[in-house]
Amino acid sequence: MNDKIIITIGRETGSGGKNIGRMLSEKLGIGFYDKELIQIAAKNSGLCEEVLETYDEKPTSSFLYSLVMDGGAFGNNLPLNHKVFLAQFEAIRHIAEKESCVIVGRCADYALAENPDMISIFITGEFDDKVASISKNNNISTDKAKDFVNKTDKKRSSYYNFYTGKTWGAAKSYDLCLNSSILGYDGCVDLIIDYINKIKK
Amino acid sequence: MNDKIIITIGRETGSGGKNIGRMLSEKLGIGFYDKELIQIAAKNSGLCEEVLETYDEKPTSSFLYSLVMDGGAFGNNLPLNHKVFLAQFEAIRHIAEKESCVIVGRCADYALAENPDMISIFITGEFDDKVASISKNNNISTDKAKDFVNKTDKKRSSYYNFYTGKTWGAAKSYDLCLNSSILGYDGCVDLIIDYINKIKK
Repeated sequence: MNDKIIITIGRETGSGGKNIGRMLSEKLGIGFYDKELIQIAAKNSGLCEEVLETYDEKPTSSFLYSLVMDGGAFGNNLPLNHKVFLAQFEAIRHIAEKESCVIVGRCADYALAENPDMISIFITGEFDDKVASISKNNNISTDKAKDFVNKTDKKRSSYYNFYTGKTWGAAKSYDLCLNSSILGYDGCVDLIIDYINKIKK
Repeated sequence: MNDKIIITIGRETGSGGKNIGRMLSEKLGIGFYDKELIQIAAKNSGLCEEVLETYDEKPTSSFLYSLVMDGGAFGNNLPLNHKVFLAQFEAIRHIAEKESCVIVGRCADYALAENPDMISIFITGEFDDKVASISKNNNISTDKAKDFVNKTDKKRSSYYNFYTGKTWGAAKSYDLCLNSSILGYDGCVDLIIDYINKIKK
């Protein structure tokens, strides 16, 4: 049995994926990487923190950018959001090589697709629950929270689909998909641990 | 605690969803409904068995049919595939009212959307595994199996999306999504039982 555990978590906005990831990492006693990733990526890529922050999970879909991905037409002059993506991509691989961990968002499942220790999870939730959570945690109105959930999921979807060539939120893109509105955060953590125990046997 | 358990299983072609459903029903000691549904639906709807067989899970997407769904313009002269869908829809609700059970395919999660005892599962699998399974079970070439998997999934997707207004295979359309290539059939059955135990507590 291999003891290394790398868990990537994709999540709908407001579904609690980040909290579930943090709780899971605490229960397993392994590292947790979300925004922290950006700081690590910053150190090695030479990009300044402000740029990394500004272009974090920013989607793109222009034809010019797809040329970049295909042929490298821009050489070292890649658009900044691509540089940020690549810096995070490298950081994720470096972290996963080094230690067991939970990584939230940033197409980590794609960066680690070839890593046999990777377990990819996706967390969904009922729309009303997600809106209530965002509204409460950010102290904004229900209408603003609805708008935020819709727009953020649209951005995440576009970012993921562009970079990975897979479909964000499609069952087939992940190993295991759970609904936090049904299981609760604790229930999700417990079921993910059951899952890990089964496949690591 | 409510002891009633209604499990619906959506599945990619060749992922073993039907076998997993049958194994699950045996382990839980509850009913199993797949093709059998058709026979039950046949009895009550007055449609003959041949029609029910021919139009089983047959998709449609024409504009005329959507008029039917919205306004009932055809009255009693619904196209046969809609009659079959409605007969199955009623049969599924009747079965779920009567007993704990596992129901495979046929948009059962949609028919039972309002049923608080319903747990909806979706099973995926790696393409090569699904093709190998279809090729072996049907004694056909790998190329034919590939074609069969692709075409059947396309039909299922179109059928599901048309009738339910949800997206077939999207994590958010189901309570729990599993990959049988990773867990194996037994692993899927066990994890679904873990899941049931958690939410029925």
